[in-house]
Amino acid sequence: MKILIVGGKGTIGRKVSNHLSKKHDVVVAGRTSGDVTVDITDSQSIEAMFSSVGNVDAVACIAGDAKWAAFDSMTEEDFYIGLRSKLMGQVNLVRIGQNYLNAGGSFTLSTGILADHPVDMTTSAAMVNGGIHSFVKAVSLELKNGIRINVVSSGLVEDAVDKYEAYFPGHNPIPMKKVINGYVKSILGKGTGEIIRMYDNC
Amino acid sequence: MKILIVGGKGTIGRKVSNHLSKKHDVVVAGRTSGDVTVDITDSQSIEAMFSSVGNVDAVACIAGDAKWAAFDSMTEEDFYIGLRSKLMGQVNLVRIGQNYLNAGGSFTLSTGILADHPVDMTTSAAMVNGGIHSFVKAVSLELKNGIRINVVSSGLVEDAVDKYEAYFPGHNPIPMKKVINGYVKSILGKGTGEIIRMYDNC
Repeated sequence: MKILIVGGKGTIGRKVSNHLSKKHDVVVAGRTSGDVTVDITDSQSIEAMFSSVGNVDAVACIAGDAKWAAFDSMTEEDFYIGLRSKLMGQVNLVRIGQNYLNAGGSFTLSTGILADHPVDMTTSAAMVNGGIHSFVKAVSLELKNGIRINVVSSGLVEDAVDKYEAYFPGHNPIPMKKVINGYVKSILGKGTGEIIRMYDNC
Repeated sequence: MKILIVGGKGTIGRKVSNHLSKKHDVVVAGRTSGDVTVDITDSQSIEAMFSSVGNVDAVACIAGDAKWAAFDSMTEEDFYIGLRSKLMGQVNLVRIGQNYLNAGGSFTLSTGILADHPVDMTTSAAMVNGGIHSFVKAVSLELKNGIRINVVSSGLVEDAVDKYEAYFPGHNPIPMKKVINGYVKSILGKGTGEIIRMYDNC
């Protein structure tokens, strides 16, 4: 299976790429490194990436930013950082990528526990994640040629505990092995329109 | 209680405004009519509305557009119609309105069943609704002075059956009385961060 992993050099992406590379032909796309570079906030960059990579059997996106800040300090423009990147970046990957997916292929997007269980300072990140959850359900009704789409929503992942634990009081870290399994389930399983939640006690 | 209803002349807004007017001081804001006009896609217009109306005890927003179309015909710009209107329009109402709400006041936003149970051609509308659900949960953790926020998510409402039933095969229409109760529960109740779902058999 030829699998394109956007964000394949990130904290989660690296582990997912390494795992899938054992049995599949993995192409890693990153903002500044990887087999191909892409800026997901720019549709022309997404189009150029697919044009360079060609048809694939699966696309996983483990990329996208949103601003974390206190709500009463967030400007309108601050919200658009997440809307252009993690929200529309992923929507545009599907919108453009549907033309490069082989029949029966799949998209796997990424969100996070904030969609369902937000914490302080995450109004934008939560909103973007929740938007992607509903988008995945909706677009799964319309994709053609047997193309599937799911989203993996993880809690605080083990490899990011040092960086983020102060934001997630009392959250049980999710082992990377379980997070990887979310992507494996989406890519190698048969489900579509699923929100694959990797939470522990939330 | 002084209640500002944005979209108070619409299908749902009219019924909610009429009901609440019996016991409260209701100010209706509409795009082209009402006690005050507002374009929720424009933050300056929102600021002007609040500046004209002054402090209130509750704001209900029953307004906002998103484009309905087949996913494979949707352009990137088509998605931004919903992002600027129903999504950021409501976020900006809260962002700006928090400065005009009396202590203990409330915001009530509006979404719809598509967030949870999308139908054909609703990738944008579903996404925007889902985004607002998570936003409401997140921002409820941060609003100050006892200000509450909830969102009412209705199924196909009785008064819109003629216009929309073809899009919602097999959906049980929701009586307007129940929809009104969603807003009453949010405005007169004590809950915050709630997604008040008015669905029937979904």
